[in-house]
Amino acid sequence: MDDDDLRRGKPSCHKAVRRGDRHPGRDALQALAFEVLAHEDTHGDPAVRVALVSELAKAVGAHGMVGGQMLDLLAEKEGADMSIGAITHLQRLKTGALISFFVHGGCYLGKASEPLRAALSAYAHDLGLAFQIVDDLLDIEGTAQELGKTPGKDQAAGKATFVSILGKERARAQADHLARQAAQHLDPFGEAADLLRQAAKFVVARRA
Amino acid sequence: MDDDDLRRGKPSCHKAVRRGDRHPGRDALQALAFEVLAHEDTHGDPAVRVALVSELAKAVGAHGMVGGQMLDLLAEKEGADMSIGAITHLQRLKTGALISFFVHGGCYLGKASEPLRAALSAYAHDLGLAFQIVDDLLDIEGTAQELGKTPGKDQAAGKATFVSILGKERARAQADHLARQAAQHLDPFGEAADLLRQAAKFVVARRA
Repeated sequence: MDDDDLRRGKPSCHKAVRRGDRHPGRDALQALAFEVLAHEDTHGDPAVRVALVSELAKAVGAHGMVGGQMLDLLAEKEGADMSIGAITHLQRLKTGALISFFVHGGCYLGKASEPLRAALSAYAHDLGLAFQIVDDLLDIEGTAQELGKTPGKDQAAGKATFVSILGKERARAQADHLARQAAQHLDPFGEAADLLRQAAKFVVARRA
Repeated sequence: MDDDDLRRGKPSCHKAVRRGDRHPGRDALQALAFEVLAHEDTHGDPAVRVALVSELAKAVGAHGMVGGQMLDLLAEKEGADMSIGAITHLQRLKTGALISFFVHGGCYLGKASEPLRAALSAYAHDLGLAFQIVDDLLDIEGTAQELGKTPGKDQAAGKATFVSILGKERARAQADHLARQAAQHLDPFGEAADLLRQAAKFVVARRA
């Protein structure tokens, strides 16, 4: 098994249930996500359920996660020539779109007002970027034991990351700034948003 | 490129847009299917759209297409020991569930009555089995030029198919019978179902 297929020391889902060139487990889980959203137990109003389906489809599709994956594959070729703007765009698609969906899903279910949606959008945006910067830092700073996979792969591949462009110190400062800013966007929600505040703290404190 | 990744002489989609171990093109197309179904242009009633999403998710998931793929992988190991009932079950999941979805999708969009739905279900069931039996026949009878890929792979692998169990003549007779029976289920629709009748004829006449 390729080390790149490990997550926290265990085989990644798509590796654990793949057979040769085929990945039926991954395909089944993606279908299951849509099935769950479309189920009446998710929300009594079909209009809410179909909105959730539409948002998830966009978040994981060519203009979301898959688009980000394609850009990420191009980034491996371009190496250190990518700008910080291009990397931010890539990461907003690759991981940010799905993180935004989780947050927006709550907005649809709770029928949040426009100002509250905007606050949560800003939270998701900052959280996603902080998450990815820390990912890049852990690839440099983490140990194999902590990460459950070999660190230093991006660096060895000469891949452009937030850390290769900003340097470790500025990258860490930027991640901490984004996590604090993410938490501030939650002010209108009071204590109800404590779990999201904890998530913002976790994202920058995590070691894996 | 492995010959198994050709369709009608051209690279299959998942091969054409794959990168290494990753298949972003396939993932993007699956997401796009759900995005299209959830879009208001598909139907004005969100309840209809969410029903389509739910049906597609089930058709392609662990209890549909992916489940059939898993059984198909097991069939390659079991070889000629599979019963005709087990192969029928496998194929109903692997290709039949998605064919049924296309037919049922029309029922949702047209809000078909229960008797008409039942008639179309029966049509889809027979069409799907006829399609698969012909697939197995073409693997034996087709030429590389017609198929756009090397024939005889199932046989060489000792894989149980409709043809390995029934023999060529009985398999062909069964496919023709199923295609005629499929067309008969369309009687209540009159001329409106002519396209579906043509599909039934095509499925058994095709050479690729």
